[in-house]
Amino acid sequence: MDFTVETATAAVVESFRNTKDPRLREVMESLTRHLHAFVRDIEPTMEEWETAIDFLTAVGHTCDDTRQEFILLSDVLGVSMLVETLNGTEQGTESTVLGPFHMTESPRRELGDSIDLLGTGRPCVISGRVTGADGTPLANAELDVWQCTEDGFYDVQQPDVQPPGNGRGLFRTDDEGRYWFRTVVPSHYPIPTDGPVGRLLEATGRHPYRPAHVHFIASAVGRRPVTTHVFVADSPYIDSDAVFAVKRGLITDFSELHDAQEADRFGVTAPFAHATFDIVLTTAPEATP
Amino acid sequence: MDFTVETATAAVVESFRNTKDPRLREVMESLTRHLHAFVRDIEPTMEEWETAIDFLTAVGHTCDDTRQEFILLSDVLGVSMLVETLNGTEQGTESTVLGPFHMTESPRRELGDSIDLLGTGRPCVISGRVTGADGTPLANAELDVWQCTEDGFYDVQQPDVQPPGNGRGLFRTDDEGRYWFRTVVPSHYPIPTDGPVGRLLEATGRHPYRPAHVHFIASAVGRRPVTTHVFVADSPYIDSDAVFAVKRGLITDFSELHDAQEADRFGVTAPFAHATFDIVLTTAPEATP
Ligand SMILES: [Fe+2]
Ligand SMILES: [Fe+2]
Repeated sequence: MDFTVETATAAVVESFRNTKDPRLREVMESLTRHLHAFVRDIEPTMEEWETAIDFLTAVGHTCDDTRQEFILLSDVLGVSMLVETLNGTEQGTESTVLGPFHMTESPRRELGDSIDLLGTGRPCVISGRVTGADGTPLANAELDVWQCTEDGFYDVQQPDVQPPGNGRGLFRTDDEGRYWFRTVVPSHYPIPTDGPVGRLLEATGRHPYRPAHVHFIASAVGRRPVTTHVFVADSPYIDSDAVFAVKRGLITDFSELHDAQEADRFGVTAPFAHATFDIVLTTAPEATP
Repeated sequence: MDFTVETATAAVVESFRNTKDPRLREVMESLTRHLHAFVRDIEPTMEEWETAIDFLTAVGHTCDDTRQEFILLSDVLGVSMLVETLNGTEQGTESTVLGPFHMTESPRRELGDSIDLLGTGRPCVISGRVTGADGTPLANAELDVWQCTEDGFYDVQQPDVQPPGNGRGLFRTDDEGRYWFRTVVPSHYPIPTDGPVGRLLEATGRHPYRPAHVHFIASAVGRRPVTTHVFVADSPYIDSDAVFAVKRGLITDFSELHDAQEADRFGVTAPFAHATFDIVLTTAPEATP
């Protein structure tokens, strides 16, 4: 019953002994040990503890229907990526964060269609193949793609400027697992900086930028879906993504092509940027024979 | 630039390298290491991560001008007590949590006055002495005391039932450092259970009760103030305080006295409960000669 720095952790861990769900008990015990180790490590003053309480409260008060500041906090501390990566597969395409802009359903489009409804950016074609780990082409695989404009904004951030669905598309691969669509080269962009997470980045001398990327969710019957990005190889901030989402295998050249015949094949005019991004989907656990 | 489970923590720690305030840098680096160690330890699924985000968001949304759910969360995880204890002194009276009910200024009262404005509970006298670590009596020391009724409610929780200032008083010690006041024996009571922290206690099979206690903040010129409680020795939950605030040195007998002369001395009628609680205040760091 005597609370001391030495007995504190054991006492709190012990308080969770009657937790019915064994997983919840494991999580709460581990949380207690790591949280107490952190507190013992930094020995906060009462004022620092109050600052932490105020910060968490402000993060909570910033969350609403269209803003999730706790996910942003998890992102900038590398926690979202760590959880994503722990849940990834060895053989399939590497996963990365979903991010906060997958808010609306992407419109269904045909292979070769453009997801750029503005026509103001540098023309770009993204193409590739969806296969299994053994190279088998996956026909009829679904690709949900979304990206920002050349100015760095998603359609939901500019409801007055961009038509809904700009930068978004839902595609299906052809009989040989291939896909291709037209778009514009996306830009790097800052995560929202007008809340407590932005103030934390400011106070710690960190920039809020993410390198240019296109989001993908790829799925197919009997396959484990993957949430990922393709990153533009020469983008600013490719070495310092504010949310740590860059994996080497996801960086792709968006090469400038001047070949008029190639341009014609994709329905664009040269010069245009071309990125190739192949996706590997492993077998879903429940679909294993 | 390649994010892997192995390189994740170093990458996030490295991102804080430009933090101007060295203490903030130390805190963020330690937070990153301990938070990542927790995530690696439990390997959450994406659904579990979402549950954690939703829980923290709900805690934030429960906070308002009169409710601080993040402090409650810190309390039930033993973090508040750990921070309090790390900030305590070796020689002085042990500190414990402030709690959420020190919301209004206590009314100034004379020694011997009653803080019980209802007159319905078991009569009780609390008396003691405030001294330095060497036993020197501290005259004119200030004691801010507050407690709940025999039914377990603070005045701010029952604005329609209790007059403001019921259970509260601001006293000054006499020339010999002594204090005494009349009150009622406080009850054990539950912390607020209608929010996410209450649901966490429910899910983990923990009760929400605190053993009976009277809050004290003691201060004197040139002394380090102390925030503490005196606990009623035979109270229910004395061995399982929901916020882990019990320290052995703070438990006191509220003895039933039948001595009419003693009763007279304190202006009560026998039988009455009597608790003695002496307080030691160490020299304030800035007052050291
Ligand atoms: Fe994005
Ligand atoms: Fe209390």
